[in-house]
Amino acid sequence: MPTGRAEAFSDGVFAIAITLLVLSLVVSGHGTLTSQLLAAWPRYFAYVVSFLTIGIMWMNHHTILAHVQRVDRPFLVINLLLLMGIVAIPFPTALVADNLTGTGANAHAAAVTYGLVMIAISLGFAGLWIYVVTHAAALGAAMPPEALRQSIPGFTGGLIAYVAATLIAAYVNAVAAVIIFGLLAVYYLFEHLPSPAEDGPRPGDEGTVP
Amino acid sequence: MPTGRAEAFSDGVFAIAITLLVLSLVVSGHGTLTSQLLAAWPRYFAYVVSFLTIGIMWMNHHTILAHVQRVDRPFLVINLLLLMGIVAIPFPTALVADNLTGTGANAHAAAVTYGLVMIAISLGFAGLWIYVVTHAAALGAAMPPEALRQSIPGFTGGLIAYVAATLIAAYVNAVAAVIIFGLLAVYYLFEHLPSPAEDGPRPGDEGTVP
Amino acid sequence: MPTGRAEAFSDGVFAIAITLLVLSLVVSGHGTLTSQLLAAWPRYFAYVVSFLTIGIMWMNHHTILAHVQRVDRPFLVINLLLLMGIVAIPFPTALVADNLTGTGANAHAAAVTYGLVMIAISLGFAGLWIYVVTHAAALGAAMPPEALRQSIPGFTGGLIAYVAATLIAAYVNAVAAVIIFGLLAVYYLFEHLPSPAEDGPRPGDEGTVP
Amino acid sequence: MPTGRAEAFSDGVFAIAITLLVLSLVVSGHGTLTSQLLAAWPRYFAYVVSFLTIGIMWMNHHTILAHVQRVDRPFLVINLLLLMGIVAIPFPTALVADNLTGTGANAHAAAVTYGLVMIAISLGFAGLWIYVVTHAAALGAAMPPEALRQSIPGFTGGLIAYVAATLIAAYVNAVAAVIIFGLLAVYYLFEHLPSPAEDGPRPGDEGTVP
Repeated sequence: MPTGRAEAFSDGVFAIAITLLVLSLVVSGHGTLTSQLLAAWPRYFAYVVSFLTIGIMWMNHHTILAHVQRVDRPFLVINLLLLMGIVAIPFPTALVADNLTGTGANAHAAAVTYGLVMIAISLGFAGLWIYVVTHAAALGAAMPPEALRQSIPGFTGGLIAYVAATLIAAYVNAVAAVIIFGLLAVYYLFEHLPSPAEDGPRPGDEGTVP
Repeated sequence: MPTGRAEAFSDGVFAIAITLLVLSLVVSGHGTLTSQLLAAWPRYFAYVVSFLTIGIMWMNHHTILAHVQRVDRPFLVINLLLLMGIVAIPFPTALVADNLTGTGANAHAAAVTYGLVMIAISLGFAGLWIYVVTHAAALGAAMPPEALRQSIPGFTGGLIAYVAATLIAAYVNAVAAVIIFGLLAVYYLFEHLPSPAEDGPRPGDEGTVP
Repeated sequence: MPTGRAEAFSDGVFAIAITLLVLSLVVSGHGTLTSQLLAAWPRYFAYVVSFLTIGIMWMNHHTILAHVQRVDRPFLVINLLLLMGIVAIPFPTALVADNLTGTGANAHAAAVTYGLVMIAISLGFAGLWIYVVTHAAALGAAMPPEALRQSIPGFTGGLIAYVAATLIAAYVNAVAAVIIFGLLAVYYLFEHLPSPAEDGPRPGDEGTVP
Repeated sequence: MPTGRAEAFSDGVFAIAITLLVLSLVVSGHGTLTSQLLAAWPRYFAYVVSFLTIGIMWMNHHTILAHVQRVDRPFLVINLLLLMGIVAIPFPTALVADNLTGTGANAHAAAVTYGLVMIAISLGFAGLWIYVVTHAAALGAAMPPEALRQSIPGFTGGLIAYVAATLIAAYVNAVAAVIIFGLLAVYYLFEHLPSPAEDGPRPGDEGTVP
């Protein structure tokens, strides 16, 4: 199967998951609307963190797919498991939005759930990337061996950071953990996988892979 | 009409239906958030089963469409009826998530509803496949006669399995039935229709059919 | 602007609107789940009618777009107004689902609202089609004059039928009116605009218009 | 990265955000359904204003992307921040729909929130456009210097108008402010960025940029 089909489906899933985050933006409670809007700050906070996170994950997903010319059944299955984590993100986002200013135990539980979903997604990305690197020829990837070595620290670092933030969520401070989740998203905005699209301008290149 | 349009629309519907499954991930009830999260296990279970099911159905839908070069009105109508079943999946998923640990009768009713939707979708897939095979020339399909024969056991088997699981849901055990629905999805991950995309690598093939 | 962009956006909107119909599939009330599921028949009925209606509208939208090679600002504005009606369909669908078996006055109000949205959409389709026919050269359409004449009875007939069904909804019987809305969708499955894609097989045609 | 990928993702986000607006179309309260439907006029009003606004923003987003041949990381990050504002639109839309006929203070707060989101989006559009103009060569844009000068009044004017309407929402009249938001959308239907697609008919142009 050419990559176009898998990319279009994945793009759709990413786009819908990121847009469904707006459903966690609600106000409730008593008092004037202004006071309700101000009290809802954990909702805006969780919205921004999850929006940036899904956005960055979308970019990295494309970087992975840009390395291959076609995909096979195992690739699609790993991709599906990865998407199962991405689609779930609005759930812990709503948990954090609902509980971050609640009792300590509930705030911890919400942030830990958020972290566990992030860890699962990190493992999904690692699995997809390892599959691409180890099946480069079958997938039509022009993948030099150093690409794998270059990318190992980045993946290991991201996974370790999410585990550390989840431990902070469990034992230290839930708000601090969510701030770290946000900083990780910002970090991945600037630091990322080697991309075939960065070799230089390629006029006339519309959606195909080199 | 070329297949591109029908594929893009179908892909969108699959992507949205699979993403809306997250809406059944909610917590409710009394007690700490941790205890609520643990008590919500039927929701995660139903989410995973339905996610894998829709994902596999998306792959098989593509395999069918990859055989044809163009689609006609009857094809689009059958496809629309099939999608009407796919889109409905979040409904029985939410029923199962809400009722699997409830009273026995409600758990049975939820699992039976799930099974009836799966049976309807199986019939839709069978109808689409039979239409493709019997109108191969008009749809521009390079379909050898043995393809039809090869695929009959797979379709019949899947339909029989869904009917059997629905009977188990009705008369034996609702949880067991949902586990079987999940196993059927995993089974179809590895066993599937003959695919024109498996003839070997086709460099330069982007979204067209052979 | 080439048509591809407008088609992709419209396809996305159609696909999401049709998938959001599942949100009107809920059960509520007292009694066993089985009795609730049986009592929810107006929801399944409204779901099927609206699903077929949006699906057929998607097909007809494509038929219109298949006639042109590019779109301009006025076309996009008319198209946006048309989509504003399509996107609204889940609202009267939920009204019908909630009220069809309620008090007579509420059932009438729900069915009339449904009809008014359908009339608005019919006017939107007529507007888009008239714009295409009257600006055929600017849009790059190979539109013979007889195409317009052929299509006038179909459009007028559909609009009159929706007005008649809305009057029936208001003054006669709400259930009968919803059945007519469903029959109209089935009718348009088989009767439709002249399509450039029906001139015969065009191998190698992927998403372009002749 | 070629523009196709970023366009498809952005299109999906726009299409979903515009379709989710239907979720603010609900009726509630006491009395007959007819009286509830009539009392819900602020919901239809907010729906129309936000629908036109997102639709116009989609058109302008395409006009910007039509100028470039490829996108880079900074472009994608600015685009992501812009989409974060677009996706949020259903939230202030629901606030306006819920509160426009409520107590004065709540109506003001809802309309001000709407305005703040619009101002944020205007800044996002300005940022994206400035980035394109200042990195025209790297993005493969054939951007004459006068394009920037031509577009400055339009952007400045739009931003000033949204700020003015937000001040009106805060200190004068909430309904008047929402009407102005609607008129701004209608204004941008007819007045817009210089578009490379307007140079004349380009037969055979399908989705590529000049």
